This record gives sequence, structure tokens and C-alpha cells, in this order.
Amino acid sequence: MPAMAQKNYAQDSTTIKKIYDNALTSYESYENLRYLTKQIGARLSGSPQAAAAVEWSRQVMEKMNLDTVYLQEVMVPHWVRGDKEIGRVTNSKLLGTVDMNIVALGASVGTGKQGLSAEVVEVKSFEELEKLGKKKVKGKIVFFNRPFDNTHITTGAAYSDAVDQRGGGPVAAAKLGAVGVLVRSMTNDIQEVAHTGNTRYEDGVEKIPAAAISTKHAEQLSSLLKEDPNLKFYMRMTSEMLPDVLSYNVIGEIRGTEKPDEIIVVGGHLDSWDIGEGAHDDGTGCMQSIEVLRLFNDLGIKPKRTVRAVLFMNEENGLRGGRKYAELAKANGEKHVAAIESDAGGFTPRGFGLDGTKEQLQAVLAWEPLLAPYGLHDIAPGYGGADIGPLKGQGSVALIGFKPDSQRYFDYHHTVIDTFEQVNRREMQLGAASMASLVYLISEYGLNGSTAKVQK
Amino acid sequence: MPAMAQKNYAQDSTTIKKIYDNALTSYESYENLRYLTKQIGARLSGSPQAAAAVEWSRQVMEKMNLDTVYLQEVMVPHWVRGDKEIGRVTNSKLLGTVDMNIVALGASVGTGKQGLSAEVVEVKSFEELEKLGKKKVKGKIVFFNRPFDNTHITTGAAYSDAVDQRGGGPVAAAKLGAVGVLVRSMTNDIQEVAHTGNTRYEDGVEKIPAAAISTKHAEQLSSLLKEDPNLKFYMRMTSEMLPDVLSYNVIGEIRGTEKPDEIIVVGGHLDSWDIGEGAHDDGTGCMQSIEVLRLFNDLGIKPKRTVRAVLFMNEENGLRGGRKYAELAKANGEKHVAAIESDAGGFTPRGFGLDGTKEQLQAVLAWEPLLAPYGLHDIAPGYGGADIGPLKGQGSVALIGFKPDSQRYFDYHHTVIDTFEQVNRREMQLGAASMASLVYLISEYGLNGSTAKVQK
Repeated sequence: MPAMAQKNYAQDSTTIKKIYDNALTSYESYENLRYLTKQIGARLSGSPQAAAAVEWSRQVMEKMNLDTVYLQEVMVPHWVRGDKEIGRVTNSKLLGTVDMNIVALGASVGTGKQGLSAEVVEVKSFEELEKLGKKKVKGKIVFFNRPFDNTHITTGAAYSDAVDQRGGGPVAAAKLGAVGVLVRSMTNDIQEVAHTGNTRYEDGVEKIPAAAISTKHAEQLSSLLKEDPNLKFYMRMTSEMLPDVLSYNVIGEIRGTEKPDEIIVVGGHLDSWDIGEGAHDDGTGCMQSIEVLRLFNDLGIKPKRTVRAVLFMNEENGLRGGRKYAELAKANGEKHVAAIESDAGGFTPRGFGLDGTKEQLQAVLAWEPLLAPYGLHDIAPGYGGADIGPLKGQGSVALIGFKPDSQRYFDYHHTVIDTFEQVNRREMQLGAASMASLVYLISEYGLNGSTAKVQK
Repeated sequence: MPAMAQKNYAQDSTTIKKIYDNALTSYESYENLRYLTKQIGARLSGSPQAAAAVEWSRQVMEKMNLDTVYLQEVMVPHWVRGDKEIGRVTNSKLLGTVDMNIVALGASVGTGKQGLSAEVVEVKSFEELEKLGKKKVKGKIVFFNRPFDNTHITTGAAYSDAVDQRGGGPVAAAKLGAVGVLVRSMTNDIQEVAHTGNTRYEDGVEKIPAAAISTKHAEQLSSLLKEDPNLKFYMRMTSEMLPDVLSYNVIGEIRGTEKPDEIIVVGGHLDSWDIGEGAHDDGTGCMQSIEVLRLFNDLGIKPKRTVRAVLFMNEENGLRGGRKYAELAKANGEKHVAAIESDAGGFTPRGFGLDGTKEQLQAVLAWEPLLAPYGLHDIAPGYGGADIGPLKGQGSVALIGFKPDSQRYFDYHHTVIDTFEQVNRREMQLGAASMASLVYLISEYGLNGSTAKVQK
């Protein structure tokens, strides 16, 4: 091992220890999350709370004595849920009337104030739906009930396998003449709460109302249908899409001392669904991103490259913030070295997934001896994140997804129980320190070329 | 790579996948935990609930069609908490009377029904206490208030650093004439709830009452003392030690097909503190140990060596079960290959700590390619566990501690909030599958000699 590399290793190891020590003994970021979740709360794009979150997080960063804090204008969809949804089996032979927990899917049209009542046809896949054909689907509510495959070790893999039902269900069902859609909630567990999330329509295909049903009630509905295939389901939703609203990405940065034009983004999304408090999704990611800047400031770390925290707007139902950010980065000729996103919950860190070149992956893997003492063992090719996705292909930017432990994420994801109480301060702060440590290493060495390699 | 090793690798990989698939799609063990925590509840040694836990878990294993299920007699301490404790600052200048959450430490004597009122002297260490000397300590309550060092990445390390106060506080204080002890609760967080746990007395030193105080109130008491060093603290506890009671270790086993005399123990402790439900400590460890046997049975895995689940009695306040088990193992000339303990909570698995020879560690490390896909990256020298500790030195037994993620453990440890609700089914089941996978590999290859080595 060359002497220089050895010296670097010792210095870097010391810096990273300082980052963790500080993060684990500070309550500031956790208290910021408390404010965001408890004082502002849910903050769907276009809502007054989303505007409050923009202004509050701008103020938080303004107080931090950064080099720059600014907003980036972006027009966002403005969908509103309306009244609390009603879901009900009205005439089951076995149980008569049974209320069931449903939540409208984002972008969904409403049912009209009278609601909608129809027979239900259950399917597990689009293939099964196609086979049924128009004759058996027309006039009915299609119930997509394929559960998570719980044998996946990471829950995100189970989500990826199942979420086509939520996104593509309404169009596929409407093409066969269905009048409504129920989708089994996207979760590993059998729960009372229903999980919202966005759906899609297509031009030329009728927009039919679509809701998620709790897994507990999905199981019950499936059982009742076996006894009584002609039961009727009543659903009432007054959701609607309103005109687009002006909103913002919120950005703060520390300029690099040696290569200020080389930018490292660290970010999460500031918007959330309109139920719950958007704590794990993605309050923690945003507060962690701001925390990276705080840690650099408090520890007097002057990054060689520019470190920029970006709180993206509208990840949940449009990705307008991510797209706008990439568009402006390109228009302004900015050079992004790396973009790191935290949007998988504020849980104990496990590692990073990297969407980039082999050389970039090797550079991060070479830092494993510095990161493993903090439980960051899982460094592998992987998904970066939705918000940073549009940056892909701009120069040689590496897209990096922060990977926390995934087991509990879909217990809370997109529900009324995604609240501050579900976040553990240490787990969240370990995540912030993990992100800060990787940002620090990239700011020192970049991700391309031999300078990136540091060996123990 | 030799062809034989390659063939083994493929077979072992398939078997381990089956173990995880089964564990992640079964609810049986989790429902067992629900019964243990909700129907039986807290089960301190000597309590009727501990007896219920013994009989119930025996019945659970009896139904499993194992080769042997039996009980091992052990006399255990019978300490009772008595009335709910009262802790109170009675005359602070700033706030007058302030109630504070305290819980008697296990083994502690009571205060008498009238309670005890005295001035408080706060210390952070035994050295500080010694320096104060008899003059400043006599007649007072000693308040040990050294917090967890939160910069430790694993919370167990912070616990180890701080727990001397709980164990050794009463003797050290009594030697200087103190009349009572308050110990800051053993947790990383600032919480309302107080954390119990065992303390010790010494022959010839007066037994003075000792309680844990919640970290929130420890902080408050410390603040009040700064304003008013002469404030008085009132504590009332009616705890007492009763005569020993007959209890049992509960044991079930599947005999090995090729080397039945070589035993692999997998275990946890069946007793718990008398507050809360003993869910993470250590209901999960016990249910996971039974689950290892269930997985072997359901998957038709015939272990070459004997696999024995041991639910130890009295880990919390005596370790009598662990000692008795080791004593009988020795007396009966049993040969233990390995003992694996799960007593660090039912959280996401991170790896195993091994207390054994270098060769044994190398054997387990050689299996890392089989275990890493399941998040088991952290295989290193480490602590086995309290219950299996007395086996140390018997033949060449390796003591292995299952290591789940540690971040949340001391949020719940020894408190009223260590309940079933805090356990995530997937996290618990991943732990059971991790233990079963390691047991499977040891049962196939042992831990000593070249047969233990399997390479990818």
C-alpha cells in the first residue's frame, strides 16, 4: 500500500468517525423531522402544506450559513382526495353489509357523489384479466389481488413485482369496459390500513375510479367472492384533478474549494402523500440531505467539490421536480459527478446501490473498508432513485441509491401510519452519516480515475 | 473449485433458500410469540407466568413430532416487585413536588412501606463516588447518572459501558453509607419509561434499595440538583426476595442421522422481566429457536448432527438455567459442537459473533457466500450469549451469538413497552431463518476440520 494512500486512509477514517460521532449525538435533524411531520404534516404537491414545507425548509437552510440557498420553479399536478372514501360490500350472503378500508389512488377520478355500485371480478394478473375478456368484465369493478411475494428478501423487490397492478390496473380494466378498480394494497403484511399511491390513465381510454383496498379487506373480499361471486361493492370517492400549481424544488449548497463546478447532489423528495405525515416517505430523506450539509458545516469540512442538497417536489405523483432539475442542469451546462437519493425510509443503513459505470462502482467498493465499520456492507449495482433518475446520461453522473434496511418500509408506505413515531432517531441519523461519509469521499476523490481509489 | 464442493454449494444454497422461503411465508412462529406475550405475558423466574411459559412451550414442542421433548429441573430465585414504585422529588425550590418514573432493580430490597426520603448525590462513575467519600455520601441516595455513549455504532457496546452502574451501584454506595440508589435507565434515548434489570449485593455489605429512573427524569433530576443540591427524593418500593422455586429449562431435539452424539444447541431464554411482555427480550429468541426445529421438520431436513432447541430459564436474574444446562451436559458427557443464542431482539439479521477458535471462525466465514444474500455480512469474533456462556470450555464447543440489528433494542429492553407490537414479523422470521441456515451448515459439516469448508 502506497504511503500516500495510507495517510489518506487514516485521515478519511478519522473524518468519517467525526461525522458519525456528531450525527449520533445531535438531535437537530430529528427535531426538524418532527416539525415537518407534526407542524406541517402531509404535503401532497399543490397543497398549502407543500407550500409550507417549501418555505420552511428554505428557512431551515437559510439559517445554516450555506453558500447558496434557492428555489427552482416547477409546475406540479394538483390532485385532491376529497371526502373520506367509502368502500362497502352491500349484500354478501354470508355477512350482509361489510365496510372495507379503501383509499383513492392518486390521479384517480371520483365516483360522483352518489358513488358507484357494481359486481366485482377478481384477478391476479393482467393475463388473467385479458382472458376474462369484455363479456365478463364490462360493467364490473376489477379487483387486482396479487399479493406481495414475501420470499423476496428486500421488500422493494416484492413491491416492484406487484405495483404494475396499481399503475396499470385502471387502463387495462377500462379497456374491457370495467367501471371501477380495486387494487390490493402494496404491503407485505395483512393490515387494516389501505396504501395509496399513484395510478395512470391513457388518452382515449375512459378514466374509471380506482382505489387501494387494505390487505385485510382484500383477503376478506376474496373469501366473500368465493361464496358469492355476484356480491356488489359500493365505492364512493370525490377525488379530482385540478389545474397545475406553481411549486418549487428547494436547494442549498456548499461550494467546492477546488472543483466547484463538479457537483454532488444529495436529496430526497419534499412532497408526500396526503395521508399520514410522510415521515419515512420521504421526510427522513429530506432531513438527512439537509443534515449532510449541517455535518459538513459543523465539522468544518470544506469539500473539494460542490455539495448540493436538493429537496425535490412532486416525486409521488408526477416527478415534475426531478425532471425540472435535470432539465435546468442540462440547460445550465452543470457537471454532476454523482447524485445520491434517500427515498427508502429512515431505517438502519445497509449500503448503496449504484447505477453507473464499472469504474464508478469499483471506486465506491474501494471505500468499503472505510464504510463497513458502520454497517455499510451492501455496495452493489442498483437503482439510484426516482428524483435523480432524469439526470441519467448527463455527462458521467453516477446515480446512487442510499439503501436502508427494507423490512418495515411497506408497513407504513403511503398510509396514515407513516408518522414521526415510526422513525427511530439513531436509525435516521446513521443514514444521514452514511450519506455524508459517501459524499465526503466523492468530494475528495471524485468517482472517475485512479484518484478515486483508496485502499486500506 | 473442486467438483464436490461445487455440488455441495449448489445443494446448500438451495436448502437455505427453502429455509428462507418457508420462514417468510409462515405465520406460525409469530403467532406463537403472540400467545407467549399476550396470553402468558411477562414471566419472571418463579412467577406463575414463568410456569405457564414452561408448560405451554413444552406443549408447543410436543405437538411438533420431535425426537425428544423434555424439561430440565432448575431451582430459580423468586424475586417479586410488590406495589408499583413511587419516585418523587418532594421539595425542589424550582418545581416543588415532582413525580418521577422509577422501577425497582431486580434483587433489590424494598424501602419498607413508609418509603425512604433522603438527599441525593449525583455521580457519573465509581471513581467520582470514591472521591466523595463517606462524609458526603452517608445517609444519602446515590444517583448514578452516566449516560450511554451514543457514538457507539452498536447499542450493545454502549450498554456494556454503562451497565456497571446498575450491577455495582448498590454495593459501592452502601459501602460509603448511602441509604438508597437511583440508576439512570440503560437506554440510548430520552424516554418516559424506566428500564429495570438485575443488580447485585455482597455478603457483609448492607443491602440498600435500588431503582432505575427514566432517562427523562434522570435529566430533570440532574437539572434540579444543580439549582438545589439539598432537595429530597422520596422512593417507595415493596420488592422482596422470596425462597427459591422449582422451574425448568425446556428442551426439544431432532436427533442427528450420522453423528447423533454431536449436539448443536439453538436457544434463547424463556424468562423475562415482570414488566412489559418480554417480547424482544427474549420471546423472539425462544420462538425463533423452536422455529429452527419446525423449519427442519417441515422441509424434511434430516440433520447429520443433533439439533437441540433450549429455552433457558432465569437468564435475567440468576442464570441458573444456563448454569444447570452446562452442568448436566458435563455430567452426562455430552459433546456440544456449537451453541447459538438469540438474545438481542427480533430485529433484522446482520450476522453472527463467534466465541471460539480461529478455525471455527474460518469455517463460518467460508459460508459467507451462502449467507450474504440474506444480509448476513457481519461474521466476526464476538460474544455468544449469557445462557450458553457456562458451556464455554466444554470440549471444542463454539459459542455463537446471533446478531440482529441493534439500533432499537434499548428503546424497549426491560421496560413496559417491550411488547408484541414492537416486533416485526419479517424481521423476526428472517432471524429464525438465519439461525436455521447456520445450524443446517454446522449440522452438515461441523465446525472443525476441512469438511467445514465450502467454497463458492
